[in-house]
Amino acid sequence: MQSNMTSSAMEGSTKRKQEEENLESLNVVPKRQVIVPTKKPQVHYIPLKTGLCYDVRMRYHAKIFTSYFEYIDPHPEDPRRIYRIYKILAENGLINDTMLSGVDDIGDIMLKIPVREATADEILEVHSREHLEFLESTTTMNREVLLKETEKGDSVYFNNDSYMSAKLSCGGAIEACKAVVEGKVKNALAVVRPPGHHSEPESSGGFCLFSNVAVAAKNILKNYPESVRKIMILDWDIHHGNGTQKAFYQDERVLYVSLHRFEAGKYYPGTVQGQYDQCGEGKGEGFNCNITWPTGGVGDAEYMWAFEQIVMPMGREFQPDLVIISSGFDAADGDVIGQCHVTPSCYGHMTHMLKSLARGNLVVVLEGGYNLDSIAISALSVAKTLIGEPPDELPDPLKDPKPEALEMIYKVIKIQSKYWKCFKRRHGNYNINFSEVASDTLATKTFPLQTAIRQQQYYNLFKEYDFVKFPTANLKLPDDLILCSPNIHTAETVIIIVHDTPQIWLEKDIISNTVDPCSSIIIDSTLDFLKWAHNRKYGIIDVNIPQSLIYGDENPDNYSSLINAQEILLFLWDNHIKFLNEVNKIAFIGVGDSVSGVVHLLGHRDTKERVKAVINFMADKQLKPLVPLVDESLSDWYFKNSLVFSNRTHPCWGDKENKKPRKKYGRVLRCDTDGLNSTIEERFDEATDFILDSFEEWSDSE
Amino acid sequence: MQSNMTSSAMEGSTKRKQEEENLESLNVVPKRQVIVPTKKPQVHYIPLKTGLCYDVRMRYHAKIFTSYFEYIDPHPEDPRRIYRIYKILAENGLINDTMLSGVDDIGDIMLKIPVREATADEILEVHSREHLEFLESTTTMNREVLLKETEKGDSVYFNNDSYMSAKLSCGGAIEACKAVVEGKVKNALAVVRPPGHHSEPESSGGFCLFSNVAVAAKNILKNYPESVRKIMILDWDIHHGNGTQKAFYQDERVLYVSLHRFEAGKYYPGTVQGQYDQCGEGKGEGFNCNITWPTGGVGDAEYMWAFEQIVMPMGREFQPDLVIISSGFDAADGDVIGQCHVTPSCYGHMTHMLKSLARGNLVVVLEGGYNLDSIAISALSVAKTLIGEPPDELPDPLKDPKPEALEMIYKVIKIQSKYWKCFKRRHGNYNINFSEVASDTLATKTFPLQTAIRQQQYYNLFKEYDFVKFPTANLKLPDDLILCSPNIHTAETVIIIVHDTPQIWLEKDIISNTVDPCSSIIIDSTLDFLKWAHNRKYGIIDVNIPQSLIYGDENPDNYSSLINAQEILLFLWDNHIKFLNEVNKIAFIGVGDSVSGVVHLLGHRDTKERVKAVINFMADKQLKPLVPLVDESLSDWYFKNSLVFSNRTHPCWGDKENKKPRKKYGRVLRCDTDGLNSTIEERFDEATDFILDSFEEWSDSE
Repeated sequence: MQSNMTSSAMEGSTKRKQEEENLESLNVVPKRQVIVPTKKPQVHYIPLKTGLCYDVRMRYHAKIFTSYFEYIDPHPEDPRRIYRIYKILAENGLINDTMLSGVDDIGDIMLKIPVREATADEILEVHSREHLEFLESTTTMNREVLLKETEKGDSVYFNNDSYMSAKLSCGGAIEACKAVVEGKVKNALAVVRPPGHHSEPESSGGFCLFSNVAVAAKNILKNYPESVRKIMILDWDIHHGNGTQKAFYQDERVLYVSLHRFEAGKYYPGTVQGQYDQCGEGKGEGFNCNITWPTGGVGDAEYMWAFEQIVMPMGREFQPDLVIISSGFDAADGDVIGQCHVTPSCYGHMTHMLKSLARGNLVVVLEGGYNLDSIAISALSVAKTLIGEPPDELPDPLKDPKPEALEMIYKVIKIQSKYWKCFKRRHGNYNINFSEVASDTLATKTFPLQTAIRQQQYYNLFKEYDFVKFPTANLKLPDDLILCSPNIHTAETVIIIVHDTPQIWLEKDIISNTVDPCSSIIIDSTLDFLKWAHNRKYGIIDVNIPQSLIYGDENPDNYSSLINAQEILLFLWDNHIKFLNEVNKIAFIGVGDSVSGVVHLLGHRDTKERVKAVINFMADKQLKPLVPLVDESLSDWYFKNSLVFSNRTHPCWGDKENKKPRKKYGRVLRCDTDGLNSTIEERFDEATDFILDSFEEWSDSE
Repeated sequence: MQSNMTSSAMEGSTKRKQEEENLESLNVVPKRQVIVPTKKPQVHYIPLKTGLCYDVRMRYHAKIFTSYFEYIDPHPEDPRRIYRIYKILAENGLINDTMLSGVDDIGDIMLKIPVREATADEILEVHSREHLEFLESTTTMNREVLLKETEKGDSVYFNNDSYMSAKLSCGGAIEACKAVVEGKVKNALAVVRPPGHHSEPESSGGFCLFSNVAVAAKNILKNYPESVRKIMILDWDIHHGNGTQKAFYQDERVLYVSLHRFEAGKYYPGTVQGQYDQCGEGKGEGFNCNITWPTGGVGDAEYMWAFEQIVMPMGREFQPDLVIISSGFDAADGDVIGQCHVTPSCYGHMTHMLKSLARGNLVVVLEGGYNLDSIAISALSVAKTLIGEPPDELPDPLKDPKPEALEMIYKVIKIQSKYWKCFKRRHGNYNINFSEVASDTLATKTFPLQTAIRQQQYYNLFKEYDFVKFPTANLKLPDDLILCSPNIHTAETVIIIVHDTPQIWLEKDIISNTVDPCSSIIIDSTLDFLKWAHNRKYGIIDVNIPQSLIYGDENPDNYSSLINAQEILLFLWDNHIKFLNEVNKIAFIGVGDSVSGVVHLLGHRDTKERVKAVINFMADKQLKPLVPLVDESLSDWYFKNSLVFSNRTHPCWGDKENKKPRKKYGRVLRCDTDGLNSTIEERFDEATDFILDSFEEWSDSE
């Protein structure tokens, strides 16, 4: 052991240097100090200040009031937004400006960066001349024309000062970036408005007139080609920065990363460009990243996770020379437009993380954010982090991210893993391109896992209960989809179990993306029902619906598990069950997506006479409505004769107490647990009791 | 779209406030400024300085020279270590001390924290009285006794000043923590020696006399019970901090996280306590985390990954009130003891990340680090981060972590996921405790995946090539392990394929830790060989060796895939192949771990007459040596008649060029790719050509 800790292996190159030093400053036994420094250090380290852009003239752009109501309830993109941020900085001593008048000397901590109007040339780097000229024309419009143009636009308003304010806002962003790039300040906060990120090259939109951040980035890249070759724009405004994205969609010099609500395009701006699969084009492919929240209500947990899993690894790999935050504070807790819950300390943490990129060259440019209190405390937290203070603790670091947000983050990592090394590492080694498997030479030596699993199920059911295959005839599907007990033609009571391919619990090798089949197990939760039915000597039909068919002879291109489930169940009813003359009591047990086949059958055939009970386990799958084709009363019948079990966290329960799914979905019950296996385990007794009751309540069945 | 962006939903509570504010400061059309602030901000924000502990008296502890050699090549724990750090801080202007004499006023950026000797009471919070008294006794020992005690100790040395230096070092750590906790400084750097983290309660060790950080943490917890209830100690010294770990192993108030080389206990201190599975005991269970590098040579990529994946999520969840870094710089690039490559900027990044915990309450205490240049530039980078500068860019952010380090990080996450929510999320939801499956009710509805896969293989081979089962008789194993072609009793030439259960490529659901069996595929790379052999009308035997048996009737407790592979191959040879009288040419194709069965057979039976070729695909598995039981010349024979293909990155190739595995491992060849499937694909033609050649070179076979 000891040898590890000795210096015997000390390198030769450093040895000589150390020998020289020994003579000079080695001091081992004598207590008297003998220090003769080689040079007298007289360097004074003077840390740079944080830059601040603010100009009262940016408050002149405002909505023209047309009613008293607007005075009580002003437009959210309110001139006070920048004032309130400036004020809170002063109140907390980060700047010295007792009168809040926007003085030039603001003290020792922050440095005022003078704001100027962006020039036409600068603006034309991003915008069209038409767009510039239209905005210029607003300076001389009369009230009526201004109101008309406001009416015409996509969520924008104009007055005669809009053009100046917009040029100042844009110029402020440029000057903030310049001050950082030129080393005048260590980083900067541009408290500017109107915001910019929705403004596309040809048009205003979403309260935005000029695309401030995009104009700044383009001009920095143009004017500092040596020192700034790559810029990362991180847009944490709750809306997608469609304008910024568009400006750099084909540009590999700018990595645009946006976190925003998308909700299948229902959230503003709602264009397909905001979707997570938009990764850039041409040279810019791989340099656009949309992290799209599928729902509102996200907060610190989701943002921290996205930063840790996506933003920071990506940023480090990109190696930007400058980072610009498109800093809307409308994801902040308290913002009624954003309806999210990012806390001020989370904004601090995100700023702190981004400071570790680009040697700290960071510019924060205000975008949206409409709760005046929320944007003030959020901006204060960002400013404190910029001047060098550590961020506050997160109020609830134990909170779990929402599953749907986790899923989205995973999807983004997956799609971006095509471009970024850091994600390949995380997501596993995609040495097999899955979509190419069918045509590939690999096809000869691969087969789908589900085939093996169904075969094993058949083998077990055959061995344990003498099950046989039910002919599937012209369905053009594997012949082991429908299995049945040997007593099927004599039984009076039949349980029909309709299920997806069972789940597998496994250990995955993170390096190769493969699993060890020896330590992986298949969990077939329906076996409990099979055993129960077998013990009661019921006839049993077991139907397995594959969710997809990967390849093979079965024409997989137009395969749909939904249609397939419906077809299989209709086939089963029309060709087999109808002719089982002894059967007078049937119960369906549906598990997973396959339930759609059961519900479809119940709506499309007259089954009421014989079907006594329907038990469906949905876990997190979408509820399936019974659409009655023949008999309007079927919804009531279904509600009365079914139990539909959902996950505790199933979206159908919404955020409100006492919300109930409608009758056409059956009698939906909320489990205490989540997941197919857990909910089946939890409700097994309830389900079987319900079936037994329904079989005996013969007289009620009409 | 537009409706999303209007203020119609503005909350009532904020409305009234805003109305009031409207009267006061809303300013929309007039260009004249009308600002009447509610209060005049006169606060001045004064950021705290960073504390610095340094005292020249800590340099008096030194090794007593016994030869001129020690003067040329001094002991690595060299008194100049702290001087060099102090000097570089002065040279870079972080402190003002032109004479480097350790003055009290060191300028505007850092604040000198006076160092004092730790008191006996403080030390006794961690150490035994015997240990304290022994160290006290060294103050009066004569040279001979000192040398004798130095000789006796575990990598420690003593002189008459050791006790004072050690008390100062320990006191410095305490005072640094106190200054931070009391809010006198924002954070602190304690440039102290001798180091502390190897010193256990009863003994010195590894250059350490008192366990400085442990003593400081214990005393802070004792004296500031209100403000400091939890402390996180992050130990990035390249050696395991066995002393610190021991002091808090049963203490839930202190989370100890160490990153260190372990190498199966071969690296100092080399006790089992340093292993990654040591997670704490009793109340302290879950509050100890060892991240153990299985090899030297790690650097920024591995440390950044470990911080991002383990240290930071864990730290945020722990919510410490104070973070102490046990800051050895022996993982630094250039340290010949650590032999790792952490760069100064990586130390900066790690410090920056840790600053985001505990509201920035961070104390950095020096431990090891033996290259004087490396520790100086590393400490400078840490100090700059402490005063608030952003860290430099990593020199090579694109570098991939070593696979074995990734694997270790994954193992740590897995073992710690028992205690930490953040890892459950990442590692998947362990709702099935795997080890309990056998006894659990789940056993009735689960079955091992490998059984299903082998069954599928059998079905395919039966359908395609009419394969049948070979009886396995008394082996007490599944009956489908050995399959053979129908011509096995008439063929002259036989190919015996011995393989592990094939790999599965899959999509995993990160939330439930389950996979979709429909989009997962089994990759059976040996099928190419089967097809080839079938086309040449060879007899074929296909042997599947399960790597483990999870449960079932087959007595899994003492199952070993190694022994199993050996037994199955011997059984096959003794009971079947021996009696295949027509066969005069045999080739083995081994894949994966199962190769051990083939090599064992070749060493234990006289097979030379009939076995003409052996092809083994090892991927990343350990090479299997042929141990000749009967015939010493077998190693040569094996080398001549085999091809053993390894991954490109297989450890057998080491770091040096031209390293060759020994002959007993066969003719080992390095593939250009990694992984079983890729290497088989790459070398398929070479392997089959080799077999064909060997079959025809009849005359050479003796």
